[in-house]
Amino acid sequence: MTGAAAPVYARVALIGLGLIAASMAHAMRDKGLAGSIVGHARSAETRATALEIGVVDAVFDTAAEAVRDADLVVLAVPVGAMGAIAAEIAPHLAPGATLTDVGSVKQAVIEAVAPHVPAHVHFIPGHPLAGTEHSGPRAGFATLFVNRWWLLTPLPEANAQAVARLEDLLRGLGANVDSMEPAHHDLVLAVTSHTPHLIAYTMVGVADHLRRVTESEIVKYSAAGFRDFTRIAASDPTMWRDVFLTNREATLDILGRFTEELFVLQRAIRMGDGQLLHDYFTRTRAIRRGIIEAGQDTAAPDFGRGAAVPPPAEADS
Amino acid sequence: MTGAAAPVYARVALIGLGLIAASMAHAMRDKGLAGSIVGHARSAETRATALEIGVVDAVFDTAAEAVRDADLVVLAVPVGAMGAIAAEIAPHLAPGATLTDVGSVKQAVIEAVAPHVPAHVHFIPGHPLAGTEHSGPRAGFATLFVNRWWLLTPLPEANAQAVARLEDLLRGLGANVDSMEPAHHDLVLAVTSHTPHLIAYTMVGVADHLRRVTESEIVKYSAAGFRDFTRIAASDPTMWRDVFLTNREATLDILGRFTEELFVLQRAIRMGDGQLLHDYFTRTRAIRRGIIEAGQDTAAPDFGRGAAVPPPAEADS
Repeated sequence: MTGAAAPVYARVALIGLGLIAASMAHAMRDKGLAGSIVGHARSAETRATALEIGVVDAVFDTAAEAVRDADLVVLAVPVGAMGAIAAEIAPHLAPGATLTDVGSVKQAVIEAVAPHVPAHVHFIPGHPLAGTEHSGPRAGFATLFVNRWWLLTPLPEANAQAVARLEDLLRGLGANVDSMEPAHHDLVLAVTSHTPHLIAYTMVGVADHLRRVTESEIVKYSAAGFRDFTRIAASDPTMWRDVFLTNREATLDILGRFTEELFVLQRAIRMGDGQLLHDYFTRTRAIRRGIIEAGQDTAAPDFGRGAAVPPPAEADS
Repeated sequence: MTGAAAPVYARVALIGLGLIAASMAHAMRDKGLAGSIVGHARSAETRATALEIGVVDAVFDTAAEAVRDADLVVLAVPVGAMGAIAAEIAPHLAPGATLTDVGSVKQAVIEAVAPHVPAHVHFIPGHPLAGTEHSGPRAGFATLFVNRWWLLTPLPEANAQAVARLEDLLRGLGANVDSMEPAHHDLVLAVTSHTPHLIAYTMVGVADHLRRVTESEIVKYSAAGFRDFTRIAASDPTMWRDVFLTNREATLDILGRFTEELFVLQRAIRMGDGQLLHDYFTRTRAIRRGIIEAGQDTAAPDFGRGAAVPPPAEADS
């Protein structure tokens, strides 16, 4: 479907060509939101792939070349790489251009990027709450952001017109847009995303180390619970390393509360306190209902299985 | 689709009429695996529902009445209720009948049930690794067991013919069947299911208690990670209370390892050890690939979203 609307930006430069950037490019193209889309990725292979599959109209060997004449520049690299990229591109940003990012942590990105941004450029930090466990330009798809939240954390001195224009683009991608303080963003995400990811990584690691249970048993019998953890724990290692290193305080805060709480349940199991367990498990159901009502998931009884289950290849294996 | 094969059992009695029993009934009916299907549930409302939606041909007010003349009796009640049910039905079980269960824990069920089982009845404990976060007879569906594992933990004195006949039924439901020692079963499940569930409950509980983040924020911004946890943490509270109380030793063992491992990652975050985090997150990807290759999940990039995403009701909300 190609939209009839005029492009929101004449030239968009994507720095980093992974899942998020490629999905933005597909959606912008489908909806006619950008005049042209160019990009840069550190790896020559990624640049060639992005060009080959039509994610971008042109690629550049350096980020500095890619941002020239762009009225929107999107930093879509791991959080730990944002500062160096900002320093590199700063002298080449066009006057009046908007610079945004898609990092999962906002305070650290602002600290790393803002000092480099010239006065004539609008820096508006952002974070789309969307993703899959797959990485790279081929993982991108146009509907990734549909009905997902895209959080902006504009600085106090942000230009209202530039923010409104960026919001137009994001809504055009299908996203719902909200704004909040960077510190509050980092705390909310520590609860809803960062700590759950760390816990999932940990549980998968425990299974990996266990000598009395073979890996093939883990894999075969992961019908419930664990399978969802492995999906989470398959996410991009570099991205997640940077998330934990740069959202350290909030993650450690939530981890501390998690451990306290886990010990309460662990003690209840040890002491045989069934009433405490039952009450606790009953309370947690309510949050799930809220998420389904808010349209962030479906009530379909698939337990994360996604697509329809294919018939068994060998009934007796 | 109605199978042309002869029924495996002439009369199946389902004790408990929740998700698992109802799914078995739907599948047995579709495949012509049972001559007739009768049942009992403690709640009159559940009995009426099961009869109304055609899950069973007849319901009985007591388990003792339901099992009369059945050549297969399935205990599909929470693990903590199995012993009392076994004591009640034991005098009414038909000679040569097979008695099985679908409990998530096997040693505790065997300890509770086996002493009541008469010598003329074949007791074959079992556990289907299938489920959703929904409960009750209306949650059942015929394809729940397709390509899922159904683990049997037969006792040393088990009758091979009776075991083979039960396996025929389970394969008829679409399941893959495997046998193992009860203690090993309980350890494997502590890793792949019980501990992940406890952790998911804990994380959702932490979010529920956090004063600085509103519940509406948790619900709105749960795009990744946390949403999968809430799905797991919405499972039946009574079933899960009983799982933890009856698989206490294995769960506490795995929980101890989990906490150790979590502290290693927590320390790496505190000390800024990015190499440790990156190496760890890279290793956990391999298990995920194994699960996809084993056909226990799909590689579809939906991050647990299940069905296709509907367009946003309000683009600006």
